[in-house]
Amino acid sequence: MEVIYSTDHADHFPQGEIYEGQLIRPFECPERWDHIVAALGVAGFDHRSGPDVLDFAAVHAVHDANYVQFLQNFWANWLAAGHTGEAIPTMFPVRGLCHDKIPADIDGQLGFYALAAETSITAGTWSAVEASASLAQTAQRRVSAGASNAFALCRPPGHHASADQFGGYCFLNNAAIATQGFLNDGAQRVAVLDVDFHHGNGTQTIFYQRPEVLFVSLHGDPAEAFPYFLGYAEETGQGPGEGTNLNLPLPSGTGFAQWAAALEVGCEAIANHRPDALVVSLGVDTFKDDPISFFKLDTPDYLRIGQRIAALNLPTVYVMEGGYAVEEIGTNTVNVLLGHLNS
Amino acid sequence: MEVIYSTDHADHFPQGEIYEGQLIRPFECPERWDHIVAALGVAGFDHRSGPDVLDFAAVHAVHDANYVQFLQNFWANWLAAGHTGEAIPTMFPVRGLCHDKIPADIDGQLGFYALAAETSITAGTWSAVEASASLAQTAQRRVSAGASNAFALCRPPGHHASADQFGGYCFLNNAAIATQGFLNDGAQRVAVLDVDFHHGNGTQTIFYQRPEVLFVSLHGDPAEAFPYFLGYAEETGQGPGEGTNLNLPLPSGTGFAQWAAALEVGCEAIANHRPDALVVSLGVDTFKDDPISFFKLDTPDYLRIGQRIAALNLPTVYVMEGGYAVEEIGTNTVNVLLGHLNS
Repeated sequence: MEVIYSTDHADHFPQGEIYEGQLIRPFECPERWDHIVAALGVAGFDHRSGPDVLDFAAVHAVHDANYVQFLQNFWANWLAAGHTGEAIPTMFPVRGLCHDKIPADIDGQLGFYALAAETSITAGTWSAVEASASLAQTAQRRVSAGASNAFALCRPPGHHASADQFGGYCFLNNAAIATQGFLNDGAQRVAVLDVDFHHGNGTQTIFYQRPEVLFVSLHGDPAEAFPYFLGYAEETGQGPGEGTNLNLPLPSGTGFAQWAAALEVGCEAIANHRPDALVVSLGVDTFKDDPISFFKLDTPDYLRIGQRIAALNLPTVYVMEGGYAVEEIGTNTVNVLLGHLNS
Repeated sequence: MEVIYSTDHADHFPQGEIYEGQLIRPFECPERWDHIVAALGVAGFDHRSGPDVLDFAAVHAVHDANYVQFLQNFWANWLAAGHTGEAIPTMFPVRGLCHDKIPADIDGQLGFYALAAETSITAGTWSAVEASASLAQTAQRRVSAGASNAFALCRPPGHHASADQFGGYCFLNNAAIATQGFLNDGAQRVAVLDVDFHHGNGTQTIFYQRPEVLFVSLHGDPAEAFPYFLGYAEETGQGPGEGTNLNLPLPSGTGFAQWAAALEVGCEAIANHRPDALVVSLGVDTFKDDPISFFKLDTPDYLRIGQRIAALNLPTVYVMEGGYAVEEIGTNTVNVLLGHLNS
């Protein structure tokens, strides 16, 4: 399995995440990447490549052009407005407020394009975001060109990013960009399997009305877990996309047996969709010791996840999402890939 | 003019407000109250009283009962869930997300009931919030009982709080509670004049469909200023309330001449509404040296504001809102009241 990666991820490293009334070192930190690269080395994943230059065609097909421009130009505009610190959004277009007016003020724009306050923008954010998206796109193109599979070691992650909102550590939706890339390159139908602990609200909303993309997500019940305001079982798609969204929320304490049963449901839906390609949003924050999640998967379980995904027998791109038990993230991530290869 | 006040305000004092990527001492701080009380003493406002016990009838007429219960019980539930620090909301029900499901998790509830992230909840918040609302209600009842006017020295402020959202330093909408109190006590029509620098989004949304309440607000253009997502001139009311909402947004650098011209427009609308009572949301963050605003009013201007309001010749309750130039907040606030009395 070819690994697509880039050291540019390190350009994004906010110093503060709001947690318990404090600003702490963010859970989504550069060391996550280091541990995954180390574990890939130990496991012999020696076929590694840098990304191709990002082709914005697929990006603009899943993201609002003004939003992409906002991200690209944000730091320069932030400094030009006299700001000095990292940018943390504070005011949001919640229910009852305007959803269609974009403020002229850069602080207002920051809130307009945000869905959460734990995610900061820094000087290097765009560089890392662009690189991360290019990894997903490059991996997709390898598979569209005939490879059986590829792994995009994305950081920052992407699945919480909607067409025009950042948050949950995400800015561009790498999995959605890969999915759109498959369609652009000739796929008739694509499935996204999101195994991150958190619901992939961004991916869901991007494809919610599109029948050619099946979105399947296993995640912590949103009544109990971030992102709280999406991810319920009754969200099944809309309009032409009705029936192509499958949420499998699971309760606190879910262990592998219960989780694997849900995965089986998801895999059956994927098989029924008859996709030409599969994108896996690979988060390993389902791990029992993850500091901000509540499932109880253990390290050997990740081998079995990869095996089950491989049994779908689809051209597959793995896109890295979350996982905050930093010491174990490498082994758990690589176990999924090893399971896939040794199925 | 009777002053209704309470030292319970000091129970609410969060230690951190997100600003420039840091947590700083909040602009909305207890010293604001101290400076106003000191200036009241210098000016001879010796008729001061504590509040009556809050009667929740008017509160529940303008706020969602679940929201009020959320605020009342929040700190106990927050501790029971294992939290230790001040509560800062991080995930919000923005556009594209569910607006009708209340999470079971206390973190999710915190975001559900919030519209901004600069406002923390602490152990003493409810005590101060309840006291602040009771001040507004007590002042209103004095006026309903025959007093010409009264001043409620509210802290925390209220005008950003909607029926079921806190933020912008506000929790219960003191001005809306006073307004509803006038109606409950027999007024046919009430006007709210919001002269705080920031748009009173909460007050607007609470009364947006109610023709008996005219809401008039002078404020920084929301394209350039908090709360960004409400306060535009085209927001004129809805349904039966169409025509009873008047927003007068003003640009950066607005001085008193321009501001007073807008006040004149607002006062004419109030006179045309023929209200039985007036509630003034009194913020003095229009001051030229306010640290988070962009108007250029000076200390003597506040005398003229009070004079113009008094010329409406209406039973009037002043409800304290914002003002963050702490050294000058007392003099500027008291000048409005002196202007009112000496018109």
